[in-house]
Amino acid sequence: MARVVVEVMPKAEILDPQGQAIHRALGRLGHGGVTDVRQGKRFELEVSDDVTDAQLEEIAESLLANTVIEDWKVIRTEVLA
Amino acid sequence: MARVVVEVMPKAEILDPQGQAIHRALGRLGHGGVTDVRQGKRFELEVSDDVTDAQLEEIAESLLANTVIEDWKVIRTEVLA
Repeated sequence: MARVVVEVMPKAEILDPQGQAIHRALGRLGHGGVTDVRQGKRFELEVSDDVTDAQLEEIAESLLANTVIEDWKVIRTEVLA
Repeated sequence: MARVVVEVMPKAEILDPQGQAIHRALGRLGHGGVTDVRQGKRFELEVSDDVTDAQLEEIAESLLANTVIEDWKVIRTEVLA
């Protein structure tokens, strides 16, 4: 078994209303040192060892991200202990 | 300026209906090798250098995560180039 993380973030040029709302809230709470906030999604997948990188990329592209407005990244993580 | 990532995931013991829905959809799409899916949130914050770790932890705990059902992790990332 392997654990895979898929990170999905709004493309840089895309308006991120959720991130902006959090940014404003942080300002009201006195956290002026935060100059920008972007919010995305993070998936943790448990996959059997025969799942290929190409399959993972297809999963990210076709189901986890909306590639018109989002970028995605697939990261294989290894539990060392 | 520093870039900070905050990862927020549902606690292990908490039901994750979004993750389960994606898991079922992957099964229908023929990706049987995926045995579990959990969905959380990922935030990227741009912060000025005077923002402390304690402040970041307070931001994560009070605004970005619902600590009753979610775990959070703050990661300072360094752009080397």
